[in-house]
Amino acid sequence: MGDASGVGPEILLRRFAAGRIGDDVVVYGDAALLLAGAERLGLQVDLRAVQSACDATPGRLNVVDLGMLVARDLTPGRINARAGEAARRYVEHATRAALAGEVAGVVTLPINKEATRATTPGFLGHTEFIADLCGTRDFAMMLATPEVAVSHVSGHVPLAEAIGQVTRARVRTVIELTHRALHHVTPRPRIAVCGLNPHAGEHGLIGSEDEGVVAPAIADARRAGVDAAGPHPADTVFHQAIKRDRYDAIVCMYHDQGHAPMKLFAFETAVNVTIGLPIVRTSVDHGTAFDIAWRGQAFTGSLRAALECAWRLANARTGTNG
Amino acid sequence: MGDASGVGPEILLRRFAAGRIGDDVVVYGDAALLLAGAERLGLQVDLRAVQSACDATPGRLNVVDLGMLVARDLTPGRINARAGEAARRYVEHATRAALAGEVAGVVTLPINKEATRATTPGFLGHTEFIADLCGTRDFAMMLATPEVAVSHVSGHVPLAEAIGQVTRARVRTVIELTHRALHHVTPRPRIAVCGLNPHAGEHGLIGSEDEGVVAPAIADARRAGVDAAGPHPADTVFHQAIKRDRYDAIVCMYHDQGHAPMKLFAFETAVNVTIGLPIVRTSVDHGTAFDIAWRGQAFTGSLRAALECAWRLANARTGTNG
Repeated sequence: MGDASGVGPEILLRRFAAGRIGDDVVVYGDAALLLAGAERLGLQVDLRAVQSACDATPGRLNVVDLGMLVARDLTPGRINARAGEAARRYVEHATRAALAGEVAGVVTLPINKEATRATTPGFLGHTEFIADLCGTRDFAMMLATPEVAVSHVSGHVPLAEAIGQVTRARVRTVIELTHRALHHVTPRPRIAVCGLNPHAGEHGLIGSEDEGVVAPAIADARRAGVDAAGPHPADTVFHQAIKRDRYDAIVCMYHDQGHAPMKLFAFETAVNVTIGLPIVRTSVDHGTAFDIAWRGQAFTGSLRAALECAWRLANARTGTNG
Repeated sequence: MGDASGVGPEILLRRFAAGRIGDDVVVYGDAALLLAGAERLGLQVDLRAVQSACDATPGRLNVVDLGMLVARDLTPGRINARAGEAARRYVEHATRAALAGEVAGVVTLPINKEATRATTPGFLGHTEFIADLCGTRDFAMMLATPEVAVSHVSGHVPLAEAIGQVTRARVRTVIELTHRALHHVTPRPRIAVCGLNPHAGEHGLIGSEDEGVVAPAIADARRAGVDAAGPHPADTVFHQAIKRDRYDAIVCMYHDQGHAPMKLFAFETAVNVTIGLPIVRTSVDHGTAFDIAWRGQAFTGSLRAALECAWRLANARTGTNG
């Protein structure tokens, strides 16, 4: 359910009250907080605390209740160390349930890193935490939209550090993770790889990395049977992929190179997917939005998109059409 | 007219033949090359070589003929050192004409840096060359669209170098150049400034530059009377500016941060404007496209947009509506 001071639990409650959280969803969170929140929002929510996902009952909001927060922990828009620690634990329980096969995948709502760091110094974020629980080193962040999937060589790191992560091995890994994430859905996904520098280095005139690092990584991936092309300039490749359907996926060299165009293009429909994990994991594509939390204003469509995407990925893995 | 091996002269000829180059345009180029090109394309072009813009005659394609190339220099798609040097000289002549007040502004067509460097080693590009001719040190590249204008702290430099250019003085300068470029058209332009790092540094959690450099530069500009806000995350600010009309302009910290979203959003209508110069200068927003040069396929709409934008800017400077 995410950090209780942010929009996560509110979005859950409002979608459930509107009949838009199906029987296929189990919440990892705090029942007392959700009940206090429903009262605050004036919503009727038929909540049922359960021990595990296996005990879920149709027609109710099934909550695996971790019992960490009480009603007075509902502190909208304020950093609350108890809420931050609880949010981390919800993710931990949900991830272990997915690893155990109790749930088909995990959909995360926003946490506040500063709040979580109050009790867990050095906490890097949802994604790194989940990967660690899964024992996975090679993973990547993908923004999935109906038109194109965009993966990133690095995530929430300073830009100067992101440049250092553009190595031949890492770029190749992300190209191959992108291929594997899509190939259940698209038999031989067409992958475009962005250059690091403007104009993808313009044949070596603008920086050395595109010819020296990115191009060899693409060649490695192609030798491994992946349909990868590039390095392409970031200012033309999105147009080629989306408007001309030349590619199914784009591999970006750093966060903003992919996020800036994709969140302009698909602000409300982009879903954050962690690729490379042994479990399915998607996330809403927004933050805790402390400024509007618990006012009944937060946009709930991203949760719908994240849930739908998680189901599609889970079904693709098992080969069903559920 | 741009590099003769690329799409520049072809675009000019095709637009003129279609009746879409008005009497208000004078070409700085080579008459012999243009005549050979028109024949190749099967176009009737009533070309007139003139000594200066003042001699232009209505209804004809007026060319200030530099006499540098001959018909056999029409080498489509091939790097040609003679064409590269000629392209540089066209720009030089047009810029001097603008500085002398003979023309209201300069619109450039694509050159090939490798070709120009064959005779002028170290040639950085159109923009730097024009700024040098104008004696201007503080200039910036802006992508102008009807919805929003996007300026950049740095241009065609390696990303690692672009990070180094994000200094308090330079960011403030680009904010203020952006303000001055727009304030004739929009009395008090609302300017959003992007952060350098993902999520604009997330309150110091992701890198130090956004709090330590970008925020103080914004404060400096605000004290100077500019309506600047930020640093904002690059993955939300374009949506805020374009879809919600919150800002008139966005200042980006490097090339791809602005170009990747804007060229997805406005691939055919974005115009490249150099701000900070004593003259009006716009450019088509594409390169030489050697792969399709002189085949009659190149998109000509960007020249239309660049010409229209140059007229708007020239008229705004003089306060006319012509």
